[in-house]
Amino acid sequence: MSIKRKKITSSAYFIGMNGNGIVSFGSGQPDLPPPSTIFKHAGDARLFRYGLIKGEIDLRKALAKQYPDAAPEDFVVTNGASEALDLVFRAIHRMHGKAKVLVCRPYYYSYPPIVELAGLEPVYTDLEDGKINLRDFEKKVKSVKAVLINSPSNPTGRVEDLATLRAIEKITAKRGVYVVSDEVYKDLIYERENYLIKGRHVITINSFSKTYSMCGLRIGYLFARDPRIVEAVVALKVHTSMNTDVLGQEMALRATKVPRSFINHQTAIWKQRRDYIYGGLRAMGFDLWKPEGAFYVLPKIKNSGRVVEDLYYDHKVIVYDGAWFGAPGRIRLSYALELPKIKEGLSRIAKYIKGKESWLK
Amino acid sequence: MSIKRKKITSSAYFIGMNGNGIVSFGSGQPDLPPPSTIFKHAGDARLFRYGLIKGEIDLRKALAKQYPDAAPEDFVVTNGASEALDLVFRAIHRMHGKAKVLVCRPYYYSYPPIVELAGLEPVYTDLEDGKINLRDFEKKVKSVKAVLINSPSNPTGRVEDLATLRAIEKITAKRGVYVVSDEVYKDLIYERENYLIKGRHVITINSFSKTYSMCGLRIGYLFARDPRIVEAVVALKVHTSMNTDVLGQEMALRATKVPRSFINHQTAIWKQRRDYIYGGLRAMGFDLWKPEGAFYVLPKIKNSGRVVEDLYYDHKVIVYDGAWFGAPGRIRLSYALELPKIKEGLSRIAKYIKGKESWLK
Repeated sequence: MSIKRKKITSSAYFIGMNGNGIVSFGSGQPDLPPPSTIFKHAGDARLFRYGLIKGEIDLRKALAKQYPDAAPEDFVVTNGASEALDLVFRAIHRMHGKAKVLVCRPYYYSYPPIVELAGLEPVYTDLEDGKINLRDFEKKVKSVKAVLINSPSNPTGRVEDLATLRAIEKITAKRGVYVVSDEVYKDLIYERENYLIKGRHVITINSFSKTYSMCGLRIGYLFARDPRIVEAVVALKVHTSMNTDVLGQEMALRATKVPRSFINHQTAIWKQRRDYIYGGLRAMGFDLWKPEGAFYVLPKIKNSGRVVEDLYYDHKVIVYDGAWFGAPGRIRLSYALELPKIKEGLSRIAKYIKGKESWLK
Repeated sequence: MSIKRKKITSSAYFIGMNGNGIVSFGSGQPDLPPPSTIFKHAGDARLFRYGLIKGEIDLRKALAKQYPDAAPEDFVVTNGASEALDLVFRAIHRMHGKAKVLVCRPYYYSYPPIVELAGLEPVYTDLEDGKINLRDFEKKVKSVKAVLINSPSNPTGRVEDLATLRAIEKITAKRGVYVVSDEVYKDLIYERENYLIKGRHVITINSFSKTYSMCGLRIGYLFARDPRIVEAVVALKVHTSMNTDVLGQEMALRATKVPRSFINHQTAIWKQRRDYIYGGLRAMGFDLWKPEGAFYVLPKIKNSGRVVEDLYYDHKVIVYDGAWFGAPGRIRLSYALELPKIKEGLSRIAKYIKGKESWLK
């Protein structure tokens, strides 16, 4: 049953890994199919021509309807949320020079490199029970030009309290600090509706990848009420990648027309999986936070690096090392896979941890 | 006939501009249709899932067959040639720190900002009759870490002599200087076959946009024999944009299977247009280089900024100011439009320059 053993130092090792009896709790990619209507596209040559750097006007009009008091000019459609983040931080660097950015830890693994690649310096506030500690946040926000918020969060699965988000809105507005709010899981919340952080200093990042299972197409966007941010991002993107894939944007436009019931149906499936994996891991003795959104759990386990390698090589189960997310001593499991596979994966994990119960303390 | 007059300071003003009786010699976008076979795609959910950061293996295998002694691992598929350039220069900056990059002037307008955004410094060698002056090149190459070559060239339409390209290959290899060779017009040469600049120090940039009229999909790639370059680019791209659009890559894969006759047929059309616009402008008294590749002419004209505005506002003809390409006193005309439109555009230009013959000297 085992695979040839190599050192595993990042999630990049597992990209594109499947088949061969492997159960993967790795990738944050929905296994659910995208809405069928997005597939139908005419062989329309228009879709193959250069488009506006900001994104197609029809898509930006549809997006503007989803946000309060928003106009199509407030949006830039990007190659996934990743490019939106990369461009926003590069724009902030160009506008304000070297500056610090406050990042919540545990974090999505790309956050520190994206901030650093833009020439900015990440500083960290450690989450408490997976949530922002406002006192620490208030202390650290004093030295930064921007904060990066991700609620619901990858990798914690936590959703920040409304009071926290409202407090952050105010503190940052008062101090003239940008809020970069990565809300790509906004439609995957089990507990309440998403709360949109608002203000002229806020840059909202979003994507069609998770809500509509369109990861491969890379259609994301940013929404900013400050036209200087939008202009600075467009001034970069015209050189660094030009327009975002026009055909993908057409598909995203169709996705905006999918009835809300599509999303509700998916959320019900996610919730069922959440309940199953959370209950299963608890029953095995794992200490973990209950996910309130997104589709990740981040249970504690000692020797997490070794656990990742043992599970993969000896049990063909892919989990990610919490250390890659700034959370050593934990592992991240994505539950973006169907229930029977989750069940099979958990039973293999149960077999592995037998006799290692002390690692879960 | 006139349009409300505003100051025009860059080609961005004209993006997406058409209809309303306008003749556009602006955008470098083929008007010819893409191969029909790329349109047929199944509603295959695989195309909507995250893909490899490097690009789909089938596409990289197909690309490897197009280059001598190449392997699929030597390629990274990117969001157009633009992202390939952005990532390559960011990678060079990360590997070698602040360094100079030698850029030929006139240049494609994105070159200086792409180099600068990566934290590198562009230095220039001025083209002579639209071609590299080897003596000046040899002098300036001594202070740089990379050179950026673009043959066939946008905006000059010139193709470097084989002897020049071979000399550059040797000089740079000897000095340990990277050659970033942007060959996106390699299939649009009227005079000879493309010459691929070779060597472990060479990074070839290419795209499906021009050859297959697929600009909007943004499928480009880089090819490098030095695995450190490929690894450095992938290490960036995993954070800055993740995989390139998988559906677009599937279409690009199909384009690689289109018979050579498709390209030959297109080249014949380009050549006819080249002959027409070159002859037409010469007959009007313009001083310009004969395009040997790509689909641009760059004739001399005094007051080029005013000419761009007059032609657009008073005659509904879009041309670009040579100043945007490092060539003040010239205008750039793209002839990526059908013959009757080229004819109409030229007759409007003829009307405009009547009485301004001294501007053409």
